[in-house]
Amino acid sequence: MAERGLNVGIVGAGRIGRLHAENLCRRLPQARLRMIGDLVESAARDCARRLELPDWTTDYRQLVEHPDVQAVLICSSTDTHTEIIEAAAAAGKHIFCEKPIDADLGRIDRALAAVDRAGVLMQVGFNRRFDANFQRVRQAVTSGEIGTPHQVRIASRDPGPPPLDYIRKSGGLFLDMTIHDFDMARFLVGAEVEEVYATGGVRVDPAIGEAGDLDTALVVLKFANGVTGTIENCRQAVYGYDQRVEVFGSGGSILADNCYPNNALIQGQATIYRDRPLHFFLERYAESFVAELQAFFEAILEERPSPLSGAEGRLPVVMAHAARRSWAENRPVRLAEIG
Amino acid sequence: MAERGLNVGIVGAGRIGRLHAENLCRRLPQARLRMIGDLVESAARDCARRLELPDWTTDYRQLVEHPDVQAVLICSSTDTHTEIIEAAAAAGKHIFCEKPIDADLGRIDRALAAVDRAGVLMQVGFNRRFDANFQRVRQAVTSGEIGTPHQVRIASRDPGPPPLDYIRKSGGLFLDMTIHDFDMARFLVGAEVEEVYATGGVRVDPAIGEAGDLDTALVVLKFANGVTGTIENCRQAVYGYDQRVEVFGSGGSILADNCYPNNALIQGQATIYRDRPLHFFLERYAESFVAELQAFFEAILEERPSPLSGAEGRLPVVMAHAARRSWAENRPVRLAEIG
Amino acid sequence: MAERGLNVGIVGAGRIGRLHAENLCRRLPQARLRMIGDLVESAARDCARRLELPDWTTDYRQLVEHPDVQAVLICSSTDTHTEIIEAAAAAGKHIFCEKPIDADLGRIDRALAAVDRAGVLMQVGFNRRFDANFQRVRQAVTSGEIGTPHQVRIASRDPGPPPLDYIRKSGGLFLDMTIHDFDMARFLVGAEVEEVYATGGVRVDPAIGEAGDLDTALVVLKFANGVTGTIENCRQAVYGYDQRVEVFGSGGSILADNCYPNNALIQGQATIYRDRPLHFFLERYAESFVAELQAFFEAILEERPSPLSGAEGRLPVVMAHAARRSWAENRPVRLAEIG
Amino acid sequence: MAERGLNVGIVGAGRIGRLHAENLCRRLPQARLRMIGDLVESAARDCARRLELPDWTTDYRQLVEHPDVQAVLICSSTDTHTEIIEAAAAAGKHIFCEKPIDADLGRIDRALAAVDRAGVLMQVGFNRRFDANFQRVRQAVTSGEIGTPHQVRIASRDPGPPPLDYIRKSGGLFLDMTIHDFDMARFLVGAEVEEVYATGGVRVDPAIGEAGDLDTALVVLKFANGVTGTIENCRQAVYGYDQRVEVFGSGGSILADNCYPNNALIQGQATIYRDRPLHFFLERYAESFVAELQAFFEAILEERPSPLSGAEGRLPVVMAHAARRSWAENRPVRLAEIG
Repeated sequence: MAERGLNVGIVGAGRIGRLHAENLCRRLPQARLRMIGDLVESAARDCARRLELPDWTTDYRQLVEHPDVQAVLICSSTDTHTEIIEAAAAAGKHIFCEKPIDADLGRIDRALAAVDRAGVLMQVGFNRRFDANFQRVRQAVTSGEIGTPHQVRIASRDPGPPPLDYIRKSGGLFLDMTIHDFDMARFLVGAEVEEVYATGGVRVDPAIGEAGDLDTALVVLKFANGVTGTIENCRQAVYGYDQRVEVFGSGGSILADNCYPNNALIQGQATIYRDRPLHFFLERYAESFVAELQAFFEAILEERPSPLSGAEGRLPVVMAHAARRSWAENRPVRLAEIG
Repeated sequence: MAERGLNVGIVGAGRIGRLHAENLCRRLPQARLRMIGDLVESAARDCARRLELPDWTTDYRQLVEHPDVQAVLICSSTDTHTEIIEAAAAAGKHIFCEKPIDADLGRIDRALAAVDRAGVLMQVGFNRRFDANFQRVRQAVTSGEIGTPHQVRIASRDPGPPPLDYIRKSGGLFLDMTIHDFDMARFLVGAEVEEVYATGGVRVDPAIGEAGDLDTALVVLKFANGVTGTIENCRQAVYGYDQRVEVFGSGGSILADNCYPNNALIQGQATIYRDRPLHFFLERYAESFVAELQAFFEAILEERPSPLSGAEGRLPVVMAHAARRSWAENRPVRLAEIG
Repeated sequence: MAERGLNVGIVGAGRIGRLHAENLCRRLPQARLRMIGDLVESAARDCARRLELPDWTTDYRQLVEHPDVQAVLICSSTDTHTEIIEAAAAAGKHIFCEKPIDADLGRIDRALAAVDRAGVLMQVGFNRRFDANFQRVRQAVTSGEIGTPHQVRIASRDPGPPPLDYIRKSGGLFLDMTIHDFDMARFLVGAEVEEVYATGGVRVDPAIGEAGDLDTALVVLKFANGVTGTIENCRQAVYGYDQRVEVFGSGGSILADNCYPNNALIQGQATIYRDRPLHFFLERYAESFVAELQAFFEAILEERPSPLSGAEGRLPVVMAHAARRSWAENRPVRLAEIG
Repeated sequence: MAERGLNVGIVGAGRIGRLHAENLCRRLPQARLRMIGDLVESAARDCARRLELPDWTTDYRQLVEHPDVQAVLICSSTDTHTEIIEAAAAAGKHIFCEKPIDADLGRIDRALAAVDRAGVLMQVGFNRRFDANFQRVRQAVTSGEIGTPHQVRIASRDPGPPPLDYIRKSGGLFLDMTIHDFDMARFLVGAEVEEVYATGGVRVDPAIGEAGDLDTALVVLKFANGVTGTIENCRQAVYGYDQRVEVFGSGGSILADNCYPNNALIQGQATIYRDRPLHFFLERYAESFVAELQAFFEAILEERPSPLSGAEGRLPVVMAHAARRSWAENRPVRLAEIG
């Protein structure tokens, strides 16, 4: 076991939990998946059997407190995150928590305080930071290749809206979807956002509006260093998953394009065309899900700081609340108003 | 003469006036340049000599009232536009006026009223509408190729800032530079803007800030049909003239890229690269300057309505004032506030 | 007249003759079209009337010998070229001759000897050399940007085959179509071809085969400097006019792509696409037709050597004959075998 | 063990053997690496230790005859391939053999006969067939998306030449490097090659010429179905690994471009650029190495025919010999001449 590095437990055997579980077993030799937990017994058991895991449980406490488990990946529903973080911290386990940490800033603060007290490492699951294209953009900013950044633009659209049930519990577009882009904007620019202006509406499905949410949004960000940014969101882009960023600076600009299943270009009778982009986040960000766990394990094993700390995970939640208020009141909202 | 269609006079032998004069003589067989006028005698005379024109003048009234002149192109400084419009209208001449008509809405209104009374045709010089790339974007919107438009994005940056003297007299970034983008946004979406939110600052040259202007801006547009738009401006893009648009709709999206002097791609030792874009507006929009005059002459000769009326020329001025106020007060400003 | 530079006569009021005539009148201020000649009276007369030319004729000798005409553009059918060249040379007129000079090398040699004796300037109409994209490729070779050239590839395909009547009189694919690519290959590499290997067949229309020709070909070129080249031809590319080149060298490579009516990219439901390329040579090479005449007039006016001499116009004919023989005998053929 | 499917042994712990070994352990759950063999004891032992394999050997016969081993991957030097194939076949083991099977057609034929007699499945390691881009090209041909194929073009260049020692033992450019492209051409077109014409020379390093080889080549292929093809090879492309294909057909064409570590486009002061392509075959074809083994294991487990049989592995060797003779004699060579 020692040869294989860290022993890991995963709480939550849903889509993202299973994804991490498979990556752990197949792609990440420096860690070993010791145990999986899920409230639904069959989900935990099936996953354990398929991946030949030593153990499974329906009680996250058993997992968190298991003496062999050194690090916990929290992939359960958002409302359970902070409780599990606090339990894992109390047990002295390193923590990887899916985004968002929570919708409530007070709960986040209590959980982060517990992490601090325990002195364990915590990383938040903003996997897009680990995408090769966005890392190239970030590198262009940090290396000065495009000079001082002035403007950032993020286009982020899903191929189609999730089920209405999901939307009702999601906390709203800004907290559920834009939150990735809030983190990306901070990552690319390397500075803090001070003010947010959000506008948008219901363009895809009136039922989303009836559920109290919007499905199409534009968010303006003002950074402390004078950079301005825009985020364009939509719950549906019929051409597929749209994930592009652009940073304009005093010395040039850099654009990251969508990703495709192949690079073949067809010269057809009516048009010159290529295939649609990679379908959705599981395909588009497949490698970044591996890379974020690799970074997590390496930080633990090499006793380096978290590549994406709990404090960094908190900020996009603040931005989401500010965006929501801005949208509701149609005025720029300073993050300081939120807390 | 009759064979060559319309007789035209041009007021203003500066850069843009000379450009129109050359296009008229070389590229537009349906019209004939009869006369050029400029306050500076040598400018008028040299231009007339070089293009073998029958006549020149230093007094625009002589040109406007010349019995052979049927249409007038107003290419003089902005503060002289409305006076010349009114004189040309009084003389029953068709009018092509460079943008913006004027900075003052009251003066614009008086001039447009004179045009209406005279029943002459008036076209405003938003040449970018006649660019093949943007026309393809507009066509995608009107034909339903991308469904109902939801979001529009315009990136519009100059290769470098104009002289400070120019900036001081320019009326400010929004009225001088963004005005083209305000018109483009309306053109692409095909609906009216109701509210504007502008932010930005001084990133290129502090002297521009000392002159009371900004050099880097982001403008958010809210259209009556629910579309949202963004305009990104900067007085300096070191990589050259940046003129891109994108419209996202329910059925797809369309992007128009920058234009280049050639399409050669070089696989070099360090990078895969191509040459910089076409230098600036004279190169980038060369064909659109021809096309806008062609449209003007055809509208007159075929007695069709103006492709870009004075009323349409007025709206971007309103938007510019709203953007300026929004920037000054950091709040969304409704166009109805401006007038 | 003197102000407008050279007086020019055009022999042949067909498609290409009319194209040159219009460019001369509209785009080339340094020359003046004095006269047009065509065997068909109505063709000559209509063209003269439309362009307001001083004169027209049905007898090329009148044109060639007219005292006001200083340069002659030969745009008549290929079999008349050498006779007109000799007459124009005898009259001391500069000569621009459409490609190919002739199918018969003996006739070409006699015509070029006449040109030499007369000391007039002669340019051959390989317009593609004056295309901005291919000039960028040539520049990359001459400047050393891609090091020493090793391989060249030319893809050259028409949107559709010409009428069978045309093909029967065309002299065959190599002399009619590939001849442009033979010239392009020499232009891009800057060295002479020593050997040719050609293969191909009838893939588009069996009637072309029955007419004794091929419609799809591959030609291999061996240059004196060790470079190898390929030319891919087809009489029909359903996606439109295909005109691409690539030069690979010790220091990199350069590719020139097809040209398009606009650069808009559409993200559609099924594919990401753009419009088809510019339709055919009139659209694709519109600017190069202007540029080649500009180069011709400038060479005359500035007493510089021809940018594309008769000797250079002869070589692609030799290559075409070598390719034909290679195809017939399925073996590499040295140009020295042809003459 | 049974749960993990096939038990596999690998002969050869060099670069490609280790690559397959890692893929087997990490990415291919349907098989299990039971044993690795290498003449060099430390190579075998280190690989086994690192991947926690149950067994290792210096004698391929122990591996081939081990009762637990069901399939053998032959990754040793080319001259040992046929001996090991025959031993594995005699032991009733399924065989995956790296390319080329052998340089000698007689030895290949004896080995393939042994495979036939044993009734085991054999696959040859032309991994590029399993690349997503080339598979998309193949799909466009088989589905009729580009109509009937007429011409194929393969550009295949390495970032730099291998050591001279390697070249001396390589069997020459055609057998060592072009062999992949010979297979690719057959794969893309879906027909047999009947005749080959090859030309080329020494452009990269005179020492390669002194070693009796060429480093830059152009090969023309004539297929039984009338398609013509070209392969462009060079041992050095300074811009990196160049792997592009294009198929032109009656209904359109399809191009597969190079692959890149990221898709970011930088608008810089001097050029618009992107990073160099993925470095070399290990990076460029990483996924195809996984996919070819997956196809091998699935064919065995599902008792389907080999996706790339020994007979298919033999043909590129014939083509390589024909190309070599064509180059030496400067004439087209029919494959029937070779055997």
